[in-house]
Amino acid sequence: MEYSLGIDIGGTKIAAGIMNREGSVLIKKTFSTPKDKKDAIVQLLENIIFSLSETAKMEGKKLVGIGIGTAGQIDFEKGKVLSGTANIKDWNDVPLRDILSKKTDLPIFIENDVNVLALAEQQLGVGRNVENLICLALGTGVGGGVITGGHLLRGAWGGGAELGHITVDMNGPLCNCGFQGCVETYSSGTGIARMMREEIKSYPESEGNSELLYYQKHPEEVTSRLVFELMSAGNVVAEKVVNTAINALSFAIVSMIHTFNPSLIILGGGVLHEGEWFIQKVRKRVGELGIRSLVDPVEIKGTQLGNDAGLIGAAIQPWVYGVDVGVK
Amino acid sequence: MEYSLGIDIGGTKIAAGIMNREGSVLIKKTFSTPKDKKDAIVQLLENIIFSLSETAKMEGKKLVGIGIGTAGQIDFEKGKVLSGTANIKDWNDVPLRDILSKKTDLPIFIENDVNVLALAEQQLGVGRNVENLICLALGTGVGGGVITGGHLLRGAWGGGAELGHITVDMNGPLCNCGFQGCVETYSSGTGIARMMREEIKSYPESEGNSELLYYQKHPEEVTSRLVFELMSAGNVVAEKVVNTAINALSFAIVSMIHTFNPSLIILGGGVLHEGEWFIQKVRKRVGELGIRSLVDPVEIKGTQLGNDAGLIGAAIQPWVYGVDVGVK
Repeated sequence: MEYSLGIDIGGTKIAAGIMNREGSVLIKKTFSTPKDKKDAIVQLLENIIFSLSETAKMEGKKLVGIGIGTAGQIDFEKGKVLSGTANIKDWNDVPLRDILSKKTDLPIFIENDVNVLALAEQQLGVGRNVENLICLALGTGVGGGVITGGHLLRGAWGGGAELGHITVDMNGPLCNCGFQGCVETYSSGTGIARMMREEIKSYPESEGNSELLYYQKHPEEVTSRLVFELMSAGNVVAEKVVNTAINALSFAIVSMIHTFNPSLIILGGGVLHEGEWFIQKVRKRVGELGIRSLVDPVEIKGTQLGNDAGLIGAAIQPWVYGVDVGVK
Repeated sequence: MEYSLGIDIGGTKIAAGIMNREGSVLIKKTFSTPKDKKDAIVQLLENIIFSLSETAKMEGKKLVGIGIGTAGQIDFEKGKVLSGTANIKDWNDVPLRDILSKKTDLPIFIENDVNVLALAEQQLGVGRNVENLICLALGTGVGGGVITGGHLLRGAWGGGAELGHITVDMNGPLCNCGFQGCVETYSSGTGIARMMREEIKSYPESEGNSELLYYQKHPEEVTSRLVFELMSAGNVVAEKVVNTAINALSFAIVSMIHTFNPSLIILGGGVLHEGEWFIQKVRKRVGELGIRSLVDPVEIKGTQLGNDAGLIGAAIQPWVYGVDVGVK
C-alpha cells in the first residue's frame, strides 16, 4: 500500500500526518505555527518532513509524495507561496517547493488551503464523484475552492477562487482587500461581528436591553459566536445581523451558481459549526433567487470530513495530480 | 487543407459559412431567423448543411465537421438546446445534434454563442495563446464566456458562465432572470435604457431641457444608443447613467477577476461599438478596485475578430474539440 505525507498550515497550528489513498490518517502530529518569521515555519516544515519520513521508513510504509495545504495565494505550478495571509506572519514570497526539495527526494505539491478542502471533499467526502462543485469556508474570512469540469480552478497563477471577495453590494462596506461589499464583509465571522457592532452603536439606551448596552460600551468583546448566542436567546438585533449574513451569502452563492453551473455547494468553516439550521436557511434563501434551471438542481451541504479535511486534502495531492507532475 | 462548416444562430439572422483552420471564411451566407417555430429553424439548418456540404464537395474542399453557435443554454455533451432566449422564439428543448445527425455524417458540435465568441478570440483573436480569459458581450443582455486553465467553462450541464447574472447589488433592481441587481440590469443596452427612463421620470420640468422632457413623455423611444448620443452632446443625466453602467460593469469584472484569476478580459457586443473610450473608462475603474495582485496584471481589451467572430467560433469547434469527440 502507498502512503502520502500531508501538511496543513494554518494560522494557529500546523497539522502533519501520514495517510493512505482512502483518507485514513495513520500518524498525525500538530504543532503551533511559529509566530515570528517565515524561516521558522520553513525550519519546522523541514523537521516535520524529516521526522515523518523516518517514521514511515521504520514502519515500512512507502511514501509516494508530500502534499502541503496553506492559507494564502499559491502558485501551484512553481510550488511557491506568493502572498500570504494576515493570519500567518511574514508568509509570502516563499519558494517553498524549491527549499523543501533540497531535503527530500519525494515530489512535493503545494496548494491553497481551501482548494485542498474542496479536493478532499471531492475525493473522499460529500462531493465524491461530483465534477462541478464549490466549497466555501466561512471562518475569520470567507475562502473558496472550485472544481469545474473535474479540475480545480486555479487561474493564471493560482490566485483564482477568491470567492470571499466577490461583491454583493457595490455600495457596501469597504473590504480590507480593497474592494467593496465583498460577501466576506457580511458572512464571515469577522463580518457578523462587525455588523453587530454597527447595529448596537446606534442602539437607543431607552430600549433597555442591558446586554446590548453592555456591548455598546465594549464593542471589542463582540464576536460572531456571541451574536449566535444572543440570537439563540431571542435577541432580535442579533437575529437581524445573522439574517443579513445569510442573505448576503445566498446572493453570493447564486452569483456563483450562475457563474459555474455546479451540482453541489459545500459549506464549511467555523461559522457552520452553528449547526444545520444555518445551512437550511441558506438553502431556502438561495432557492428563492436566480435562474431556476441553474439554481434548482444544486444541492447545498455541509462538509463531511470534519477537522482533518485540510490535512486529508493536502495529503491526497500526490495521487490526484500524479506523481510525475511534481517538479521533483 | 481541411475545412469546417460553421453556423451562427442569432435572434435576427443566421450566418453560415465554410472556414479553414486559420479563420478564413471562404463562403458565407446569411438568412433571417425564422420567427414562428423551432421546426422552421431546424428545417433551415438542414437546408444550410445540405447546400453548403454540396458546395464544398463541388469545390473539392474536405469538411471535417460542423460547428454551431447559438444563443441559449446548451448541453454541449448531448448537443441539445435546453432553454433558449427571448430573442429566438420557441428555441428550447431541441435535441439539435440528434436531429441534424440524420442528415449528415459529419461530427456536429453545438455550443452557446458567447462561449463560441470566447473560443474564437482565444484561438484566432485577441486572446491567442491565453489560457485564462473572460469574454463579455454587452448587447441587449450581457453574455459571458470563460476559458480557465485552457478549457471552456461549461459546468454540470453547460449552463455556466451566465456572467450577466452575477449581482452587483443585492438591493438592486429585479432582473427578468429572477435575481436582483444583476450586472445586466445596469450595463446591457436594455439596462442603460432602463436607467435613463428612471432618471428622466423624476426630471423636473423646471430644469427645462426640452429633449429630456420629450423623452419623459415618450419613454418607449429611449434606447442605449440615444443615451450615448445625449451624453456625447453633453447631457449630464445621460452621462450619469453611462457612468453607473460602467461602474456596475467594473464591479462585476473585479468579482470575476477574483473568481477566475484571468490574464485577459475581452469586451464585445453592441454597447462596445461606442468606442475605445468605453473600454478605457472600464479599465480605469477596475484598476481602482479589488485585490491588487489579481487585478493589476489583467488586460482589458476589445474583441478583435469583428462581425464574423460568432461564425468563426462556431466553425472552429471541430478542430478545438477533436473530431473524435463528437457523438457522430
